[in-house]
Amino acid sequence: MTDLQTRAADLDARDGLRGFVDRFVPAAGVRAYLDGNSLGRPVAATAERLAGFTRDDWGTRLIRSWDEGWMELPFELGDRIAALTLGAAAGQTLVADSTTVLLYKLLDAAAGARAERTEIAIEATNFPTDRFVARAVAERHGMTLRWLEADPVHGVSLDEIDRHVGAQTAVVVLTHVDYRSGAIADLPAITARVQAAGALMLWDLCHSAGAVPIGLDAAGVDLAVGCTYKYLNGGPGSPAFGYVATRHQDALRQPIEGWMGAGDVFAMSRDYAPATGMRRFLSGTPPVLGMLAMADMLDLIEEAGLEAIRAKSVSLTSFVVDAADELLPDVRLLSPRDASRRGGHVTLGHPSFEGLVPGLWDDGVIPDFRHPDGIRLGLSPLSTTHAEALVGVQAIRDALLG
Amino acid sequence: MTDLQTRAADLDARDGLRGFVDRFVPAAGVRAYLDGNSLGRPVAATAERLAGFTRDDWGTRLIRSWDEGWMELPFELGDRIAALTLGAAAGQTLVADSTTVLLYKLLDAAAGARAERTEIAIEATNFPTDRFVARAVAERHGMTLRWLEADPVHGVSLDEIDRHVGAQTAVVVLTHVDYRSGAIADLPAITARVQAAGALMLWDLCHSAGAVPIGLDAAGVDLAVGCTYKYLNGGPGSPAFGYVATRHQDALRQPIEGWMGAGDVFAMSRDYAPATGMRRFLSGTPPVLGMLAMADMLDLIEEAGLEAIRAKSVSLTSFVVDAADELLPDVRLLSPRDASRRGGHVTLGHPSFEGLVPGLWDDGVIPDFRHPDGIRLGLSPLSTTHAEALVGVQAIRDALLG
Repeated sequence: MTDLQTRAADLDARDGLRGFVDRFVPAAGVRAYLDGNSLGRPVAATAERLAGFTRDDWGTRLIRSWDEGWMELPFELGDRIAALTLGAAAGQTLVADSTTVLLYKLLDAAAGARAERTEIAIEATNFPTDRFVARAVAERHGMTLRWLEADPVHGVSLDEIDRHVGAQTAVVVLTHVDYRSGAIADLPAITARVQAAGALMLWDLCHSAGAVPIGLDAAGVDLAVGCTYKYLNGGPGSPAFGYVATRHQDALRQPIEGWMGAGDVFAMSRDYAPATGMRRFLSGTPPVLGMLAMADMLDLIEEAGLEAIRAKSVSLTSFVVDAADELLPDVRLLSPRDASRRGGHVTLGHPSFEGLVPGLWDDGVIPDFRHPDGIRLGLSPLSTTHAEALVGVQAIRDALLG
Repeated sequence: MTDLQTRAADLDARDGLRGFVDRFVPAAGVRAYLDGNSLGRPVAATAERLAGFTRDDWGTRLIRSWDEGWMELPFELGDRIAALTLGAAAGQTLVADSTTVLLYKLLDAAAGARAERTEIAIEATNFPTDRFVARAVAERHGMTLRWLEADPVHGVSLDEIDRHVGAQTAVVVLTHVDYRSGAIADLPAITARVQAAGALMLWDLCHSAGAVPIGLDAAGVDLAVGCTYKYLNGGPGSPAFGYVATRHQDALRQPIEGWMGAGDVFAMSRDYAPATGMRRFLSGTPPVLGMLAMADMLDLIEEAGLEAIRAKSVSLTSFVVDAADELLPDVRLLSPRDASRRGGHVTLGHPSFEGLVPGLWDDGVIPDFRHPDGIRLGLSPLSTTHAEALVGVQAIRDALLG
């Protein structure tokens, strides 16, 4: 056993959350799954939940299930996500649509609430869908985009916010944990600066929810949106969650007005009158089947507690950084070295990486490639061991040597 | 046995599709499920499909599944729906979003393609989400809504089209099978009139797809959208399908530009350049889990054939009309009496109906109530017997008497 292997074994032995690893569907032939921040693994209970749902709730209760729970599911799940991962009180979060569509709806509503202003500010290297949506919404409202430049490792600075956010700014869209570097933005400080300028702050929480404490209410965030198929293990393409602070809900109007967002869903009235509260941010029929799996992961998060999950996450990413320092001397660390500024994944850079990833996948080691030369190691805290993470780093070393 | 019971037994005995009834999940305690046009019953194979998918495609292949099939699933399923139910060639149909959201995207794209015109025409009593979306899209494009009046039983006439559709009309939105009466619109003739005025025709196929032949290509329809959770049995809130005729695809621009609709999904480029073909109508990550169940129903439709399904549907609705004539003399038929003008459901009217439906549901007889005084009997052809339909009509009679 190498020193690193001994250390991994020791860390796993002392890991109070170690038992959770066995609560996921076993993945035959996979030696290291390091992409849980792109697609979380299914909780073992999910297979039977989906089959049982098909036989009972859908197959036997049939249409009656809408009255017996489905109509409230977007809000019940939203409130659980809020309580367990977002640091938000009930009545401010729902589950609906894809992340792209829900971002479009909330950003459009936010821009409409600041219609007298002329700019939407967004990080220039934010995830593409965020930038594409921001551009489309800006165009629709006769606004322009203001690009915020980010340090590739540490993200957008407060100085950059101060330089570009002002009386002209309607909304600022930033990502809490950067999808490439894993850098955690200073959410409370940035939110305060943006709001001091009279603008609204919309956070993308795709790479945070379930891995990093967020504290939306404490920071007084205006709006947020995020994925449920990453650290919330909702399954491929599971619907997004969205957060709108209570104080804004009845003043905001979202663009895709549909029957599920109307004040009286079954009134079949001629004119659209939005519901009060979060329901007005619904459009079409809730995607019930796609909302089931995340409940199993929320059960595990509730059992483990987010603080313990974050501690395990820090332990995993710190160990990977150490292992990379030792085993991959020619590789650049593209994530913050300071664990307190790093989310649940670590990105490494090397010119040869693009060619290596297909071979790693064939070999049962599954990280993510990030253009142009990054390998991203996602370390989903409840389903990943230190030993597994080390297998990944060793496989990268072998591939580079090989 | 009453004469009607004998006739039902005889019709079921001679029904070449009778065996399909046993291919669905059995619903304990349900004597008559007459709402398959609101939520189709799960195919028996679906429970194991979802469990197996969770263990294998999601749980074991993990992120690799995106390359191994998931990325193409919206188009593969779309092409199957097109071939089996829409009368449309490949490359014009996708599965994505909720029906409301996809309608918004396609209608907005269509209005943008006729930006020099000033009106969107829509049936005044169309399903609420269609009207709400049309109003929002019209407002966005500086257009007004033109309301088309419909006969409550037979729908919108060609004369009404001629009166209201002209050089000012950008798009006309109509429903092929009316959600209340079940009337089938004259899709080829209306499409031709609308196009003669230089407008685009968008059909809502929610209550048609899987029950009634449609013939989109033959009629030269421009755009269409529909549900997959009704006669396509995709499960509660399963994603919608959308159709855009090949000739329009590269000229239309939809409003929710996201990474999945970009020409190069993983280029992470600064500017959005839409993909060619149908991919540009995608926005966010495809809702894979919600797209699985419908494949099992498409298998059954392929096996049975849509012509045979339609013949069974006509037999079921005709039998229900006869049974209602005999057993419910005080009840009004709110659907066309001519079977060739009637889709897969029959609506009956009586002032007492609103109060009766909860009792029927408790008694395992499950139709749908339609404001103000309608009971809608949905007769999903592959999962419903004539005997079951008769149980429903008899239960309504007993409830009225009782």
